[in-house]
Amino acid sequence: MQSGMYYSPEPAAGKPAVAKGEFPIAAVALDHGHIYGMCEGLTGAGANVKWVWDPDPKKRGDFLKKFPDAQEARSEDEVLADPGVKLVAGAAVTSERCALGLRVMRAGKDYFTDKAPLTTLEQLDAAKETAAATGKKYAVYFSERLHVETAVFAGQLIEQGAIGRVISVMGLGPHRLSPQSRPDWFFVKEKYGGILCDIGSHQIEQILFYTGAKDASVTYSRIANYSHPEYPELDDFGDASLVTDNGAAGYFRVDWFTPDGLQMWGDGRSVILGTEGFIEQRKYMNLGTNDGPGHLFLANGREETHYNVHKKVGYPYFGQLILDCLNRTENAMTQEHAFKAAELCVRAQLQAVTIA
Amino acid sequence: MQSGMYYSPEPAAGKPAVAKGEFPIAAVALDHGHIYGMCEGLTGAGANVKWVWDPDPKKRGDFLKKFPDAQEARSEDEVLADPGVKLVAGAAVTSERCALGLRVMRAGKDYFTDKAPLTTLEQLDAAKETAAATGKKYAVYFSERLHVETAVFAGQLIEQGAIGRVISVMGLGPHRLSPQSRPDWFFVKEKYGGILCDIGSHQIEQILFYTGAKDASVTYSRIANYSHPEYPELDDFGDASLVTDNGAAGYFRVDWFTPDGLQMWGDGRSVILGTEGFIEQRKYMNLGTNDGPGHLFLANGREETHYNVHKKVGYPYFGQLILDCLNRTENAMTQEHAFKAAELCVRAQLQAVTIA
Repeated sequence: MQSGMYYSPEPAAGKPAVAKGEFPIAAVALDHGHIYGMCEGLTGAGANVKWVWDPDPKKRGDFLKKFPDAQEARSEDEVLADPGVKLVAGAAVTSERCALGLRVMRAGKDYFTDKAPLTTLEQLDAAKETAAATGKKYAVYFSERLHVETAVFAGQLIEQGAIGRVISVMGLGPHRLSPQSRPDWFFVKEKYGGILCDIGSHQIEQILFYTGAKDASVTYSRIANYSHPEYPELDDFGDASLVTDNGAAGYFRVDWFTPDGLQMWGDGRSVILGTEGFIEQRKYMNLGTNDGPGHLFLANGREETHYNVHKKVGYPYFGQLILDCLNRTENAMTQEHAFKAAELCVRAQLQAVTIA
Repeated sequence: MQSGMYYSPEPAAGKPAVAKGEFPIAAVALDHGHIYGMCEGLTGAGANVKWVWDPDPKKRGDFLKKFPDAQEARSEDEVLADPGVKLVAGAAVTSERCALGLRVMRAGKDYFTDKAPLTTLEQLDAAKETAAATGKKYAVYFSERLHVETAVFAGQLIEQGAIGRVISVMGLGPHRLSPQSRPDWFFVKEKYGGILCDIGSHQIEQILFYTGAKDASVTYSRIANYSHPEYPELDDFGDASLVTDNGAAGYFRVDWFTPDGLQMWGDGRSVILGTEGFIEQRKYMNLGTNDGPGHLFLANGREETHYNVHKKVGYPYFGQLILDCLNRTENAMTQEHAFKAAELCVRAQLQAVTIA
């Protein structure tokens, strides 16, 4: 093994993107726990949560324990009517995320939604039209790239040419089901959107991002319910192949089969193959070890290196998103990229063959 | 992490399958270096190499250095005419492997060929007919399962129910190209058969084996030459999705992009997902470490364990093959399985979409 460590992770800015109070946000629709990661990411970059709203008082109460400075709104309208709110973060039921986004954008605010950002092509059209008409953002929390340090570092390495031209991106996105912890809507396909749309959306976004593609075709996709007849609308397995407009081969597999003996909810991996080397991410754990998260492996012409980037990279997305909202720029992620990922995850699901 | 080590590898029989001289073999056609692994496997299980033949005296001479007890034949006919030879091992140019096999079987001997075992469906028909007519075997050296200890142990674990029903088998088969070390035929598609047929054959055989399937369909496959315009008939990348007749989802990726900084010719992996857990094989190396080969990771309901099985499992295939030849049994691998893997690798290649 040639171990060089020729590269170093570039840490995200150590200081907030804005001064305290300069970027008030609201949390609306707390149906998925991702709302916490979304708000933590933004507040870590300088935002403050001014309002929280959800029809369920229990969800509001839980949220206020983590964000005690937020005010409990009496309605969504109260939040949307506040001209001080710059951005609304929402983790609604997946099929309702677009409708919320339309209301937010029409109220003159940027929208930051949990993934998947929407579940149908009709919703996508409405989101695109409203974003264009209002000039507001429909940003998406693709957490498995934006809120994962190896994923950020992988992007830096590719940009620095560490593996040459990216020709293949392969993602594994296993998840633990824990059905007793899931709300009813989680098992209704019209609501959660299907596995390729739901947890597959992370994967498709990564394929587009790491290949630097503007577009892609879903060449083959499939779903199955192998082992959960009690939830007939649950896809417990799915995979898909894509080809990007710049000729790279994407593939991902997602499932709900993480076993209870595993230390983590999922052994998320990404293997990015370039013409000059490859990168493997072991995002949340290094299987069979107690070494924590943040493992990236790089092999190219001059090195085979295990980089541990836990607490070394951070999450530049959130500060960039705040500044993008203030400056009307697109450094965190372009709207086109977010909508393209949204489109492809819906298409992957629509095209999917069901394995009997 | 719950570390249990509930399983132990079952070592292959420590003693030879036959007494010295009881199973004389010949090595004919030394076009690929796999002939050494094939003959080492068989002699390790008790066979003796009686003859060697190749038209190239240099190849014969090199072989005799490793197997000095072999006799140098004057022709293939001399080998085939010897009634003492039980089996002929051959690593011919891929497109000529079937023709050699037909001659071997018609001479009343079993045949053991390097993979891919053949390159066309017409050859497959001829091989099937001749095997049936002569009652002889057309066995195949699928080395990435048969000659890899983690691969053997994975089979044992699945048989013992360690991961429940196998629903998905994913294989990564990267290889180093080292073009200067390759003969001309290696770059001629009609001769090497295409990447999905060639190194893909290992992967397809594993998908059939680990799922316990009798048959499968190639649902999508693709090839590319991303980076080697000087070898226009080389596929330097390929991948394919299969669905087995018992409903499992197979996927594999193969390529010729192993970078020079990597310690090994390829970081071969296999991830086998079951309803009750999963297995990852890191066959030849544990990326980013100097820990040698033989790493298998098992996670299920009660453990997340790193099993190092280097020199703990061995290779039962070879002794079983010898006994199968002597006893006319099929414990090492059924003929049906070998031909089905052969068929599917040809079909994967025939169906492949070329990425521009």
